[in-house]
Amino acid sequence: MKYSLGLDFGTESARAVLVDIDTGETVATAADEFADGVIDEGLPGSTESLPLDWALQNPADWLTALERTVHAVMEESGAAPESVVGVGLDFTACTILPTTLDGTPLCALDAFRDRPHAWAKLWKHHAAQPQADRVNQLAQTRGEPWLARYGGKISSEWLIPKALQMLEEAPDLYARADRLVEGADWIVWQLTEKLHRNACAAGYKGTWHKVNGFPAPDFLAALHPELSDLYQVKLSGSVVPPGQKVGELVPTWAQRLGLSPGTPVAAPIIDAHAAVPGGGVSQPGILLMIMGTSTCHMLMAEDEMLVEGIAGVVEDGIVPGYFGYEAGQAGVGDIFAWFVERMVPPEYRAQADRQGRSLHDVLAEKAAALRPGENGMLALDWWNGNRSTLMDADLTGLLIGPTLATRAEEIYRALIEATAFGTRMIIDAFIQQGVPVESIVTGGGLTKNELLMQIYADITGREMAVAGEPQISALGAAMLGSVAAGSQAGGHGSLGQAIASMAPPPARVFRPKKAHQLPYDQLFAEYRRLYDYFGRGENDVMKVLRRLRSGSGGGQEP
Amino acid sequence: MKYSLGLDFGTESARAVLVDIDTGETVATAADEFADGVIDEGLPGSTESLPLDWALQNPADWLTALERTVHAVMEESGAAPESVVGVGLDFTACTILPTTLDGTPLCALDAFRDRPHAWAKLWKHHAAQPQADRVNQLAQTRGEPWLARYGGKISSEWLIPKALQMLEEAPDLYARADRLVEGADWIVWQLTEKLHRNACAAGYKGTWHKVNGFPAPDFLAALHPELSDLYQVKLSGSVVPPGQKVGELVPTWAQRLGLSPGTPVAAPIIDAHAAVPGGGVSQPGILLMIMGTSTCHMLMAEDEMLVEGIAGVVEDGIVPGYFGYEAGQAGVGDIFAWFVERMVPPEYRAQADRQGRSLHDVLAEKAAALRPGENGMLALDWWNGNRSTLMDADLTGLLIGPTLATRAEEIYRALIEATAFGTRMIIDAFIQQGVPVESIVTGGGLTKNELLMQIYADITGREMAVAGEPQISALGAAMLGSVAAGSQAGGHGSLGQAIASMAPPPARVFRPKKAHQLPYDQLFAEYRRLYDYFGRGENDVMKVLRRLRSGSGGGQEP
Repeated sequence: MKYSLGLDFGTESARAVLVDIDTGETVATAADEFADGVIDEGLPGSTESLPLDWALQNPADWLTALERTVHAVMEESGAAPESVVGVGLDFTACTILPTTLDGTPLCALDAFRDRPHAWAKLWKHHAAQPQADRVNQLAQTRGEPWLARYGGKISSEWLIPKALQMLEEAPDLYARADRLVEGADWIVWQLTEKLHRNACAAGYKGTWHKVNGFPAPDFLAALHPELSDLYQVKLSGSVVPPGQKVGELVPTWAQRLGLSPGTPVAAPIIDAHAAVPGGGVSQPGILLMIMGTSTCHMLMAEDEMLVEGIAGVVEDGIVPGYFGYEAGQAGVGDIFAWFVERMVPPEYRAQADRQGRSLHDVLAEKAAALRPGENGMLALDWWNGNRSTLMDADLTGLLIGPTLATRAEEIYRALIEATAFGTRMIIDAFIQQGVPVESIVTGGGLTKNELLMQIYADITGREMAVAGEPQISALGAAMLGSVAAGSQAGGHGSLGQAIASMAPPPARVFRPKKAHQLPYDQLFAEYRRLYDYFGRGENDVMKVLRRLRSGSGGGQEP
Repeated sequence: MKYSLGLDFGTESARAVLVDIDTGETVATAADEFADGVIDEGLPGSTESLPLDWALQNPADWLTALERTVHAVMEESGAAPESVVGVGLDFTACTILPTTLDGTPLCALDAFRDRPHAWAKLWKHHAAQPQADRVNQLAQTRGEPWLARYGGKISSEWLIPKALQMLEEAPDLYARADRLVEGADWIVWQLTEKLHRNACAAGYKGTWHKVNGFPAPDFLAALHPELSDLYQVKLSGSVVPPGQKVGELVPTWAQRLGLSPGTPVAAPIIDAHAAVPGGGVSQPGILLMIMGTSTCHMLMAEDEMLVEGIAGVVEDGIVPGYFGYEAGQAGVGDIFAWFVERMVPPEYRAQADRQGRSLHDVLAEKAAALRPGENGMLALDWWNGNRSTLMDADLTGLLIGPTLATRAEEIYRALIEATAFGTRMIIDAFIQQGVPVESIVTGGGLTKNELLMQIYADITGREMAVAGEPQISALGAAMLGSVAAGSQAGGHGSLGQAIASMAPPPARVFRPKKAHQLPYDQLFAEYRRLYDYFGRGENDVMKVLRRLRSGSGGGQEP
């Protein structure tokens, strides 16, 4: 038997899977929570509180979880170390940390451990918004060519804003940081003593382009004089596509993990993007949606198109040889959770408790008894802004149609429908702008909600296939490991081959119901009109409300 | 001491108050619930269920409550029967019943008691909507001149639709009904053996006009051939302004009530309208708002204007000598109750229980801690349609601005603000179309909500005076009784005099806060834009949603 080890580094925990590279069968899996979790209140060991919107991680947690989970899967499977032909990993991004030349995180040095900027900034660190605003404004003013690839705007989560925030707020630490490195690349650096940059994170979060490279030094200098050599120095290292072999497991780490020294280690990939191979998608035209608190939409094409309001397009970013497109909905499961936690009356909770079910189940059951349109409501799914196709974080939610007779399940259903309409907008944007979508594969926690999946099928008019492997990203990471091994070392010759061998068939396919097409087409026409009216500047009431909320005028009362 | 007896007939109960006519002091009060309550499920003693939207009352309940409450106030006060100089009453309208020539309700006859159309149709009987639609359509087609006085549309609650429904669905009963009479006028008929029609109900609900009379027989004949003599025969009886003496208490009823025979009885008034004198309003320019489950706005003027979307204007309809205008918001307290009952999570209820307070209190306290605009939300207050100024029952609610951080109290406040914006729209409509509004007096249950009252003051930019007497309509009815007595019999010479003597000063005045004007003016501009956009046909999504709800296309799922 030959196995590949897939490592999946998330927001709260890491997971390891050991996968049979011929069948794709997961023979063992283990997860471990990060001891310090998401650091958003105060640094470990400190009583000082972090400012709003900060979110950090402790790199030491990553290594601890790595050791524990790899030991666990090796033990559980009983696999021999030499049967592991390769190691692949996925990681959140942009999750970036400052290190010394030898890779030591600055936060691991006593001198700096009380400095927030010494720690790893997690993907959802949003405190660099002012910097992101300036980056966007300057890039627009200068007509920077790379901006159009990201729908005309980059987010505060991305590399340049995070680096610029560090430079401005902690210039001594920025100067001391010999390298700024993605968590994914840092783990590979540890395991192989080789520092490369994975094309996925570099492209989607670091504004790298395969042909044109990085933003020019004079643009960076215009942001801040000391930022001009960011890519040449602090981000040095060649950019390699996911799955390409970066190096081999060094003896110290082979020993710590109980693996063989010399085991090939693959260039990593972003966690969401790992779901593309994990979901069995190896070619253009198949939209892969990871549906959870938010939804990430990934699609490949033969060509590079500039699609309005799409978060990014990166050559080699997912499956080498293709252009990978990414879009997203900023709130999906989060919107349902908001409603369930904050807006549902006690009777529903009592029923859920009595029946030993979740409130989501109770609401979904009641909502499923309604036919399309019967709730008499329509929502815009912008509770957390719009990530695609409007790319506007300042948009907010809208619910239209409630009456005195409206019940909780009717709103619940309207919220689900709204997110499905939002997905249809994204699909339509891809198609209208020349990126074909032929079929759809889904993964993530929401795929367990049958009502939701059926509504998505009905509203998009398309089949929704649910990926066969629940740990879809971890499987994708394992596929990368098998590719790093290469066919001569018993692995796979390409990611396409790995996917063909290792991806299981869909767990389930939801098919659109004919009778639901007409009412949902009518509702979608209304959704689209509201979308344009409130989203494209004709009525900016959401912006006005936001301004008033953040406080111009008015005192306390009564 | 001289007293007037005020009788207030509501939806669920009746109330009597005995009021000192010189000071306005209420010396005794008593209430009694109607035994059969609102009959909307099945007739008393029957297991057959009534169709949707039916709402009936049993006239026998009115008489029982009348006897009980009058005995109670006479006993409690110890007043001598001869010290009661007059009797006045208010009643819901249009609440209409079919009777024989001698006033016997058809439902009191054994032959008809199992026939729904034999009972009194309560004001909120909404089953005559198809008839109302036809009345409106025909009147518009023919350009009936009276239609403009009612904002271009009459409601299913009104007299003609209710009479037409009876004629169409129970022609034998319609033929057998010698008279159709408002509950108010029927009570007076019982007490005095004289049948008149009060100008308030006749004008606001029966399409009567002081100069032009009733709709013409040929219009009625076009609706149904047998309807042509409706006003001449079944609604015969002269129309008299509220407070005018209709007759004197007959000996049998004097004995049943423990009052003196010959006591003057006043022409009655609609319950909401009784609040105008009860609230101390005797002249043009003072808007009286009764704020409860819905809100009724009443205003007088020297002239007759046709105000867009205002429910009615009636000469002599409230205070004789003036034109009385009525407008309304179809859902106010009902919207807050909908939210509190259906949308508030258990923690809030737990806090309310722990503190022995109502959920409304808990939410209001939290909402009061927000400054204007801080909730970041805006709503359209159409959960129960719009009664003025759009007069469109098919409009529905809208909430804009929720985010993942939105809390229940923020929505609660947005709903209160929305109803206050709706009130401002009504005030603006009056003023812009030539009916002055100089000040505002309020009554009803919502006046106890301090947060709400302050928000109304802030949003309208006007002082909100709360009427001094909580039983505002009953006091108004007692004023009518003192006027029926007349000054020579120890009562008052006019309603104006009665009001001057008997109306207490405001219990409290809420004054607009300067700091809140600017943000609320900004929010109102946004409200108004949404109001026009969704309310005046530019975007008919609410109508589309209603159509889809009532079911074109789609099957059951999943």
